[in-house]
Amino acid sequence: MKARVYVMLKNGVLDPQGEAVRHALGSLGFDGVEGVRQGKVIELDLTEGTTEATIEQMCEKLLANTVIESYRIEVL
Amino acid sequence: MKARVYVMLKNGVLDPQGEAVRHALGSLGFDGVEGVRQGKVIELDLTEGTTEATIEQMCEKLLANTVIESYRIEVL
Repeated sequence: MKARVYVMLKNGVLDPQGEAVRHALGSLGFDGVEGVRQGKVIELDLTEGTTEATIEQMCEKLLANTVIESYRIEVL
Repeated sequence: MKARVYVMLKNGVLDPQGEAVRHALGSLGFDGVEGVRQGKVIELDLTEGTTEATIEQMCEKLLANTVIESYRIEVL
């Protein structure tokens, strides 16, 4: 089975990487880009029967820094 | 309007970051993780009326390195 974990910085946490992308898009002539936030996608290839609770533990322990990041799990 | 761009390394391109995550999950006692690929999510806050073609141009020119990465656009 496959699962995807999306990790994003929480609202209010400064995102310098996203800011850099916003600037770069502006320099390239793309107007109307009001904000950019950058996060991570982690695609997991898991043995059948892995529960969503296990994936949640992976997020809490390793994949996301829950102090500043939020995560979303999508089982495919 | 909001749009999300998902950028992943193409199949066959070595993903050391994903490999590191796979190892780390193993060390933490999570069995059954067969593979991990890591990519980026970019959330764009755009002025109304920005076309998907424009977002595609952003991907081609800046957000993805199309030699080794593929991207997927999701307009919200």
